[in-house]
Amino acid sequence: MKKIIAINSGSSSFKFQLFEMPSEKVITKGLVERIGMDNGIFTIVVNGQKHKEILEIPSHKEAIEMMLEKFKEYNIIDSIDEIDGSGHRVVHGGELFPESALVDQKVIDDIDSLKELAPLHNPANLTGIIAFQQLMPNKPHVAVFDTSFHQSMPESSYLYSLPYDYYKDYGIRKYGFHGTSHKYVTHRAATLLERPVEQLRLITCHLGNGASIAAVKGGKSIDTSMGFTPLAGVTMGTRTGNLDPALIPYLMEKTGKTAEEVIDVFNNESGLLGVSGFSSDLRDIEEEAEKSNPRAELALEVFANRIHKYIGSYATRMNGLDAIIFTAGIGENSDVVRAKVLQGLEFMGVYFDEKLNNVRGEEQFLNHPHSPVKVIVIPTNEEVMIARDVMKYGIEA
Amino acid sequence: MKKIIAINSGSSSFKFQLFEMPSEKVITKGLVERIGMDNGIFTIVVNGQKHKEILEIPSHKEAIEMMLEKFKEYNIIDSIDEIDGSGHRVVHGGELFPESALVDQKVIDDIDSLKELAPLHNPANLTGIIAFQQLMPNKPHVAVFDTSFHQSMPESSYLYSLPYDYYKDYGIRKYGFHGTSHKYVTHRAATLLERPVEQLRLITCHLGNGASIAAVKGGKSIDTSMGFTPLAGVTMGTRTGNLDPALIPYLMEKTGKTAEEVIDVFNNESGLLGVSGFSSDLRDIEEEAEKSNPRAELALEVFANRIHKYIGSYATRMNGLDAIIFTAGIGENSDVVRAKVLQGLEFMGVYFDEKLNNVRGEEQFLNHPHSPVKVIVIPTNEEVMIARDVMKYGIEA
Repeated sequence: MKKIIAINSGSSSFKFQLFEMPSEKVITKGLVERIGMDNGIFTIVVNGQKHKEILEIPSHKEAIEMMLEKFKEYNIIDSIDEIDGSGHRVVHGGELFPESALVDQKVIDDIDSLKELAPLHNPANLTGIIAFQQLMPNKPHVAVFDTSFHQSMPESSYLYSLPYDYYKDYGIRKYGFHGTSHKYVTHRAATLLERPVEQLRLITCHLGNGASIAAVKGGKSIDTSMGFTPLAGVTMGTRTGNLDPALIPYLMEKTGKTAEEVIDVFNNESGLLGVSGFSSDLRDIEEEAEKSNPRAELALEVFANRIHKYIGSYATRMNGLDAIIFTAGIGENSDVVRAKVLQGLEFMGVYFDEKLNNVRGEEQFLNHPHSPVKVIVIPTNEEVMIARDVMKYGIEA
Repeated sequence: MKKIIAINSGSSSFKFQLFEMPSEKVITKGLVERIGMDNGIFTIVVNGQKHKEILEIPSHKEAIEMMLEKFKEYNIIDSIDEIDGSGHRVVHGGELFPESALVDQKVIDDIDSLKELAPLHNPANLTGIIAFQQLMPNKPHVAVFDTSFHQSMPESSYLYSLPYDYYKDYGIRKYGFHGTSHKYVTHRAATLLERPVEQLRLITCHLGNGASIAAVKGGKSIDTSMGFTPLAGVTMGTRTGNLDPALIPYLMEKTGKTAEEVIDVFNNESGLLGVSGFSSDLRDIEEEAEKSNPRAELALEVFANRIHKYIGSYATRMNGLDAIIFTAGIGENSDVVRAKVLQGLEFMGVYFDEKLNNVRGEEQFLNHPHSPVKVIVIPTNEEVMIARDVMKYGIEA
């Protein structure tokens, strides 16, 4: 029996989850926020109870030390030596990491070399990895990349219709993200469908504040909606998704913004927030749409419309499909979005049963029993995937 | 019986076609090229025979005068008075022109006011209109817009997921183009299918050097692949189609180009040309792919892949479909592209018969007789649509 910790670092925060493996039992989990700012926040769940403290947390390294101290304080472990390894979500693995990797100096250098592709994320992810290396120098640490699952895409999917040298010289291609989540629900779907994953054609819809759709054929991602960055694809909380690239110089001229600033608007002020004018949170939009707020209704229509079209596009890409999966905050919880996305798909064998749709955050089939294409809500679990990869690449390898 | 002339102006050229209406018989047609440059070229087809001359053509107005002189020289007409009206393709009608319009001063001012949306095209189109007004002041002149057919799109299709004010303040939305062609093949398809257009769900694929796909439900465009400009949508001869907008600042930094220059690359050095590295002409690409040139094969895959995905997307948008239409240079002539686009669509009722696919530039069904979804090659005819609208808006109105 091993104790494995999974870490998901942001630039000033991280989430953690301590697992007993291989049982995958969660021993504890929590969140450290506002690292390096006034009033850091430490939250931990012990025996189902949430504890929250406000305190100073100067750096990622100190945050991790504090977390480990708290583990002792709450009698979760007696010594740091009881932890057998750590796993870390890393946003960008470029073309260097088609799978998770046991951390050594080369892996660290490679992650660092990819920072240009994910300037906000890779350095923060690396900080967490290095802190663990220093605190637990004799234990395995494994990097798990958001991009790895999509490295199986064929060239005709990942290549943009740009001068080919841009791919060779600058690494410009579709990478895709949320790979760990798409992979988790893919394998969970195969289990629930009681069919070998190699035989399945799935469309996995990871719909959270960030959202991406993947076409997964035989267990491998063959196309996905996000691109070179997470800006592309469907409408998201604050991101545009796809749009006519010629809008950028047009908007620069109209607003006096730089290209970077226009992209900031596309990333942070657009999507559900931009269309509705009042919130990036789908729950707020649904509440207002319920009261017939026209801009809320419009935001909901636009959001569902884009996902709906990707379903058709990816079913076609695989010449048909076996199941559609919904996961992440919106996918797991919004019956409204699911119903809109699933309407009118009978022509491709999707018989959605609205009566089954009243489900939040739990595994459930949403299709009529004889529907050739199944529809399943599957709560995602990136942390357990990270813990599994620590076992696979760090302990059993 | 009326004689109507249809004009399609570019910035330094125009195509013309003189019709006898309502029979739609083509009396003569031709092309004026290199207006305002050395060695202008005038080409005209009379009684099936092509005549070509090199001569100086200083301006659009003089080009039109010359064309009318040639009509007399070739005994096509005895006097300019025999021409009963002219029709003009105009690229951008914005939201002002949901249909064709009889030209008066207000229409001229409106077309001029839209020049910001089509800076290369609308001014050239207007030059042609004004020249005809001066030469034939007492005859009706009708403007036929590339965007009009797509004005029926619902808001959830045309609105980008941007701050809503960008739509209100700057007119930023999806407009769509090639509308006259999509409309022509829509109505022709209804005739060939012997069904009322109101009952049909069609996907019309206008595939030329520029390419766009439309979802046409009940005779109305409800979605289309081009956007605010013709850059968006599928891969084209030299255009990228959709890509991650975040690539623009990244490429600006990498290449030192301005945003405008990056968009120029997206418009003029990308698409089939960018991927293949040697040609924007699909015929060249097919020829090289035949010889197993890997970059030619890749360009072909990328091109077909994007169209294939739009078929699925738009079938879904209409909850199924009745027919897929291929038109324009590539759509009418390339059996290779059609075969790639039509593969694997049986799950949505498209049974393509490869044996029927060996057709170039003529109307033909490509589906098995019992295929629920039909597939039809229909050569487009924008000029006859223009002539019909001169009759409708200028003569019969």
